[in-house]
Amino acid sequence: MAVTIDYAALLAPDLPAPAPGWQGRPPYNFIGGHVDAASMPVEDMIAATAAVLRRDGATLSTYGLESGPLGYQPLREFVAAKLGKRSGMSISADQVLITSGSIQALDLVNGMFCCPGDTVLVEQFTYAGALSRLRGLGVTPIGIPLDESGMRADLLAAKLAELKAQAIQPKFIYVIPTVQNPDGSIMPEARRAELLEVSAEYGVPIFEDECYADLLWTGERPPAIAAMDRRQQVIHCGSFSKTIAPALRVGYIVAEPNLVAQMAACKEDGGTGALEQMMLSEYCRGHFDDHVAKVTVLLKEKLDVMIEALEENFGTTAEFTPPPGGIFLWVTFPDVVDATKLATAAAARGVTINPGPDWSADAAPARSRIRLCFGNPTADAIREGVKVLADVCHEEFGIPVRSANVERNRLTG
Amino acid sequence: MAVTIDYAALLAPDLPAPAPGWQGRPPYNFIGGHVDAASMPVEDMIAATAAVLRRDGATLSTYGLESGPLGYQPLREFVAAKLGKRSGMSISADQVLITSGSIQALDLVNGMFCCPGDTVLVEQFTYAGALSRLRGLGVTPIGIPLDESGMRADLLAAKLAELKAQAIQPKFIYVIPTVQNPDGSIMPEARRAELLEVSAEYGVPIFEDECYADLLWTGERPPAIAAMDRRQQVIHCGSFSKTIAPALRVGYIVAEPNLVAQMAACKEDGGTGALEQMMLSEYCRGHFDDHVAKVTVLLKEKLDVMIEALEENFGTTAEFTPPPGGIFLWVTFPDVVDATKLATAAAARGVTINPGPDWSADAAPARSRIRLCFGNPTADAIREGVKVLADVCHEEFGIPVRSANVERNRLTG
Repeated sequence: MAVTIDYAALLAPDLPAPAPGWQGRPPYNFIGGHVDAASMPVEDMIAATAAVLRRDGATLSTYGLESGPLGYQPLREFVAAKLGKRSGMSISADQVLITSGSIQALDLVNGMFCCPGDTVLVEQFTYAGALSRLRGLGVTPIGIPLDESGMRADLLAAKLAELKAQAIQPKFIYVIPTVQNPDGSIMPEARRAELLEVSAEYGVPIFEDECYADLLWTGERPPAIAAMDRRQQVIHCGSFSKTIAPALRVGYIVAEPNLVAQMAACKEDGGTGALEQMMLSEYCRGHFDDHVAKVTVLLKEKLDVMIEALEENFGTTAEFTPPPGGIFLWVTFPDVVDATKLATAAAARGVTINPGPDWSADAAPARSRIRLCFGNPTADAIREGVKVLADVCHEEFGIPVRSANVERNRLTG
Repeated sequence: MAVTIDYAALLAPDLPAPAPGWQGRPPYNFIGGHVDAASMPVEDMIAATAAVLRRDGATLSTYGLESGPLGYQPLREFVAAKLGKRSGMSISADQVLITSGSIQALDLVNGMFCCPGDTVLVEQFTYAGALSRLRGLGVTPIGIPLDESGMRADLLAAKLAELKAQAIQPKFIYVIPTVQNPDGSIMPEARRAELLEVSAEYGVPIFEDECYADLLWTGERPPAIAAMDRRQQVIHCGSFSKTIAPALRVGYIVAEPNLVAQMAACKEDGGTGALEQMMLSEYCRGHFDDHVAKVTVLLKEKLDVMIEALEENFGTTAEFTPPPGGIFLWVTFPDVVDATKLATAAAARGVTINPGPDWSADAAPARSRIRLCFGNPTADAIREGVKVLADVCHEEFGIPVRSANVERNRLTG
C-alpha cells in the first residue's frame, strides 16, 4: 500500500532518535534509578489502595479529585510532615505541588525560568536527565567543580562574578546536596550556608533536588538547604521513586506560595495520576518510615557486595568513595579507559552502565568515570556483572592488569 | 524577612497567570470533562488492583515495569482489542503508546510535528485544550467550518489549496469525528472517506481524537477514520478519562510503528503512572463493556434532564441538537448574548459554563454559544443550575423573555 504522507518532511527538526524496540532488560542492569524488586510492599499497597478508594474513590470522577491543582491534599500533608521530620523543613501542605515524578518538577522549574540562550549553574557532575533537559531547551548548563563537600561555594561565587561582568544573569543553581548524583556525597551544613550566602549575594535562586536523601545508611544528615532558607531563595524537589517505586510517577516540589501557584498554572496535564497519589498517601502514612528503614539495609548490603566485587575484579584500578546512602557508586578508572566505549562494549555483553560524560556538564573530566547502580540487581547479578565488566574492560583497555581469576582471588584473599 | 531574589525578573515571559487558591467546586459545575461520582466502580477497582499487584507488583521496581517505553503490555493489548471491537480498527499492541491522558497525546503530536509559526487545521469549533496548546507553541490553528456531518471536506480542500498556493504546509488536520467536541455530532462514514481523500491529496496527516467515542446512547457509529485508513495517514488517540475516570491519567495514541517509536522517544517522562495502567488493564478486561453500558444510560438520563431544564427555563431562546452520546451539549443563544460575559456572571452565582469562544478557532462565530457538561452534576443540580443560569442570562441580556416561573411552567405544560 502506498504511503501518501511524507512524514520525514513534516516532523520537527532535532527530534531524539526513535525508541528502539523493547528487548527486555539486560542481565546485569547497573543503570537507571531502579530499586529492589523483592522489596516492593505489594500486600501493604493493596490494603492501602482498598482503604483509600473506599474513602475517596468517588472523587476520581473529577480532574484533580476534590483537592484542586496542587494534588491530593492528604499526600501533600504527608509530604509536608515527612520533610519536617527528615529534612528539617517547616512548611505547610499549601507549599507542596505534587508532580508526575521529580522529572516533571525539573520540567516545571525549567519552563518557568528558562528561555533558549539562558544559563543555569549545576554541579560539575550531576544528573544526566537534568543536563539533557536543559540542553533540549537551548539552555547552557555551566558546571561548578565538586569537592568531598559538594559544590565548591568559592568557585560558584567566582563564576557568578564572571557572569555578572558579562551581564549574564543565570536563572538558578541546580544542586543535589544530600546523596549527590552521581558521587553520593552529602554536603555539610557549613557548605550549605555558604551556598545560601552566594545565592543571596547574586540574586540567583537555588533549586535543591533531594531525590535520594531518604536513603541513608545512618539516617544522619544536615537539614535541607530549603530548611536553612530564611529568604525564599530555595525551590526544593523530591520523589517517591527511590523510596517506594520508580514506576509510580509521583514527586513533589516545594516553594514559596507565589511560585507554587505559578507552577500549578504551568502544570497543564490534567493532574498527576490520582490513584498513585491516593495509594501512596495511605501507604506512606502507616509504612513510610519502616519501609525506608528496610530498603536502606538492603541497599547497604548490595553496596557492600558491589564494593567487594569491584575490589576483587578491578583491584586498585577502580577508585571510589563508598557513599553514605543512595543507589549508585561513582567509579573512576585510569585515564586509559574511555567510559563511553566501555559502556558500549559492556552492553554487548549484557552489562549496562552509565558512562561518566553523560553525568557531567563537561565531558572531559568524566571521560574515565562510570556510575554503577546497585538498587535493582540481585547480589548474585552484581557479582557476576562486575566480573563481566572487568573482563570487557581488560579486553578493551588492558586493565585491570590482574584479570585472571587466580590473581583476582589473591587480591582479596 | 527580606526577599533577596527578584523572581519577577527571573521568570520566563508569557507564563500563564498563577493558579488561584483552591476554593472547591461550584455548586453547579457544567464545565470540564468530569463524570458521574456515583458511578465510580470502587469495589471492582479495589479487586482489580489487588489481583494485578499480586501478579505484577514487583515490577513497579523498574521504570516502565517490564513492558518498555510504550506502556504496560496488557493494557496495550486491551486497547488494541477495544479499538478492534468498538472503533473497527485492526491494530497490534505494538502500535499503541500509553500516554498520561489524551492531553499528553496532543502534546506528543504537537511536539513531534510543530514549530513556532506552523499551521494546523482544526474544526471551527473544537476542544479548547487543543487550541490553547497549539497557540502556546506559537502554532496557528485554522478552523474549518462544520455542518451536521462534521468538518466540511470541501472547505478543507479549498483551505488546503489556498495554503498550498501560499507555500504553507499544514502539519496535520485535528478532528474529533465521533461525538464532536463541542457539538456532539458523529461524522458519517462518507464524510470520513472524503477527509481521507483530501488528506492524501495534500499529504497532510489526520489526527483523530476519539475521547468520547465510547459513550454512545445506541452504540451505533461508523468505523474510526483510522480504521478506514489504508495509507498510514491517520494518528489516532483516545482516553479512559471519560469512560472510567478523569483523575486516572491514562490515554493512548495509535499510529504506524515508526511514528510510535518516535513519540516514545519524545515521551521523556519516566513512563505513565504504572499503578493506574495496571489497575485499568485488569479492571477493563472484565468490566469495560458493562461499565460503559451502565454509564451511558446514566449520561443519557442526565442529558434528558438538562434538555428538559433548558426548554423549561429558556424556551426557544436556547437552540441545540441533542447529541447521540458524550457528556456535553452545545447551546446557541440569540446574538444579544455574549457568552463570555454570561460565563463570568454565572460563575459569580455558582454556575460554571464553558463560553463558546474558548471552544472556537475564531471567537466571533461562537460569541453566543456555550458548552454545558452534564456528566458530573446530579439531576437536581442540573435542574437548579440551569434555572440559575436562565436568571443570570435574563438579568444580563434580557432573555429568556419569559423568565418568570409561571410562564416557564406554561411553556412546558
